[in-house]
Amino acid sequence: MKQIVIVLLAGLLMLSCEQPKEKTETKKKAEFAIVIHGGAGYMRRAGMSKEREIEYRKKLAEVLKVGYKILEDGGSSLDAVEKVINTMEDSPMFNSGKGAVFTGEGKNELDASIMNGENLEAGAVAGVTIVKNPVSLARLVMEKSPHVLLARDGAEKFAEMQNVELVEPEYFYTEDAWNALQRAKESELKKTDEDQSALHDFYDSKFGTVGCVALDKNGNLAAGTSTGGMTNKKWGRIGDSPIIGAGTYANNKTCGVSSTGHGEFFIRYAAAYDISALMEYKNMTVSEAADFVVNVKLKNAGGNGGVIAMDKYGNVAMPFNTTGMFRGYVKNGEEPVVKVFADE
Amino acid sequence: MKQIVIVLLAGLLMLSCEQPKEKTETKKKAEFAIVIHGGAGYMRRAGMSKEREIEYRKKLAEVLKVGYKILEDGGSSLDAVEKVINTMEDSPMFNSGKGAVFTGEGKNELDASIMNGENLEAGAVAGVTIVKNPVSLARLVMEKSPHVLLARDGAEKFAEMQNVELVEPEYFYTEDAWNALQRAKESELKKTDEDQSALHDFYDSKFGTVGCVALDKNGNLAAGTSTGGMTNKKWGRIGDSPIIGAGTYANNKTCGVSSTGHGEFFIRYAAAYDISALMEYKNMTVSEAADFVVNVKLKNAGGNGGVIAMDKYGNVAMPFNTTGMFRGYVKNGEEPVVKVFADE
Repeated sequence: MKQIVIVLLAGLLMLSCEQPKEKTETKKKAEFAIVIHGGAGYMRRAGMSKEREIEYRKKLAEVLKVGYKILEDGGSSLDAVEKVINTMEDSPMFNSGKGAVFTGEGKNELDASIMNGENLEAGAVAGVTIVKNPVSLARLVMEKSPHVLLARDGAEKFAEMQNVELVEPEYFYTEDAWNALQRAKESELKKTDEDQSALHDFYDSKFGTVGCVALDKNGNLAAGTSTGGMTNKKWGRIGDSPIIGAGTYANNKTCGVSSTGHGEFFIRYAAAYDISALMEYKNMTVSEAADFVVNVKLKNAGGNGGVIAMDKYGNVAMPFNTTGMFRGYVKNGEEPVVKVFADE
Repeated sequence: MKQIVIVLLAGLLMLSCEQPKEKTETKKKAEFAIVIHGGAGYMRRAGMSKEREIEYRKKLAEVLKVGYKILEDGGSSLDAVEKVINTMEDSPMFNSGKGAVFTGEGKNELDASIMNGENLEAGAVAGVTIVKNPVSLARLVMEKSPHVLLARDGAEKFAEMQNVELVEPEYFYTEDAWNALQRAKESELKKTDEDQSALHDFYDSKFGTVGCVALDKNGNLAAGTSTGGMTNKKWGRIGDSPIIGAGTYANNKTCGVSSTGHGEFFIRYAAAYDISALMEYKNMTVSEAADFVVNVKLKNAGGNGGVIAMDKYGNVAMPFNTTGMFRGYVKNGEEPVVKVFADE
């Protein structure tokens, strides 16, 4: 009897001393994979026509195909992220590039960033007004300058030197974005000073920030984000999208992340890097980490939005604490998945 | 005999299952404390006159006194951080405010940020050219706007609305900073394209970013950072100083941090937040966490610089991977400590 107890206790001792194992949803590595978002927000089925919904789903599927093709052909995750985001920037349907929202002054000031998970190199631009594809300029900042983040007219001078495609500021005019600014201004007039909180600004905004994370055949992760920021934003406001660690992060050791939502909270909570830190330091899976940041930390703080994240095995997480997020993913050899609302 | 083995095994089992305890250098809480830096860099005894060294030590001690007085009188850590940094901004001896370095275009573009560890609120400004005390404007962004980060002319419009002290751009001229730009430009002309690396820019810069972390009698931590950036910086470059999570971070649960050094690396490594994450997720002390980020992660990546950090008990860490860092701290009832080189 005593011998049995000894054996049992010894066994328990061994088990209890065992180091926690690295968890992932699956370690069966996807050869390549891509996940995208077109912004989180308070979309409701009642507030969106069936036609509009179908249009978004079609566009998201089309965008996924662009990335799939690049990765299937052996292209890099950086190329996939850049080209996928370019496709969304060129569409008036999202708050980035062509469809960017208007500032309080009636301008379009665009932010974007990109990060390479292989070497933690990164580039970003903030407040550019004449660059057709801000994420491509962000990539040039990463590859052709010693800096990470360039802003406004300075970033545009760099853009001219790099021969990126420039457009007239009028290129970014869309009726939807202009009308959203008028509504925001009207509602601002009705508010007292006390009401002029960040929350109100957020509810008025278009939520259409775009982002992409990709895993290529070489096992490299990359992530990128592009946005017009908040409708009616003021005073050269920079949100989280061009902030490495807040709006975008990628590290082959852990995951790639792109954020969408109320940027001020994502900056203060270093949201994108925090997901990586929870995986690296707390041994969480990408789903556990992304869910904890979005649905516990940010939600408790009142920070609305969501993220897309992918680990080095191609496992995907797409949590959001709003009512919906334009999103989708596709893995090597699998059918693409596209969703808008919480359930589908 | 078997009973002894059972007891021993049971004891071992209990010990082995025990959760790791929270470690800190001391839990004997300082009533209040303050730590400052005036920049990390490649200062050498041979390269600095004894007079100049004494001048710096005197200034750092004077700055500490400003913060000590505020905290002793029951002032908030935010007030202490702001006023301490104001004192350094007003001195031509540091690369912030009055002593800011010049951009490649011969301008002074200033960055600053501040964070409140009690509620994780934060404010920051980037690329302002006419604001005498950028860290005070950063505090107003935190307290009087719904945003975290405002840039360039937009931030200056906000500054005008808030009635902060504005100066002519010429206010920021100092002979030292101007000469540093001329040297940087000469050395740039001698370099091939290949040489125009971030590393060279860093070695040419003045390393005088300033920062402060304070703990007040209410147990609240705050942190702030202010800088002129890199000598000869280009294209509206924004460094880590105005980036929450990179240049500045504060959280009552963990620590306050202010960074100084090659900002691009501090952004890519989310350096300030990472110290907090290592404490929260890996149970490191503030010294272990700060040392790991500065002397392992950043050093291995080639990211030169240092940080000051303080935990909720007033324990101080001041690691750097350069040859020196202007730094000092003082705790309630203790003698102030001021250091410049590695050993003293």
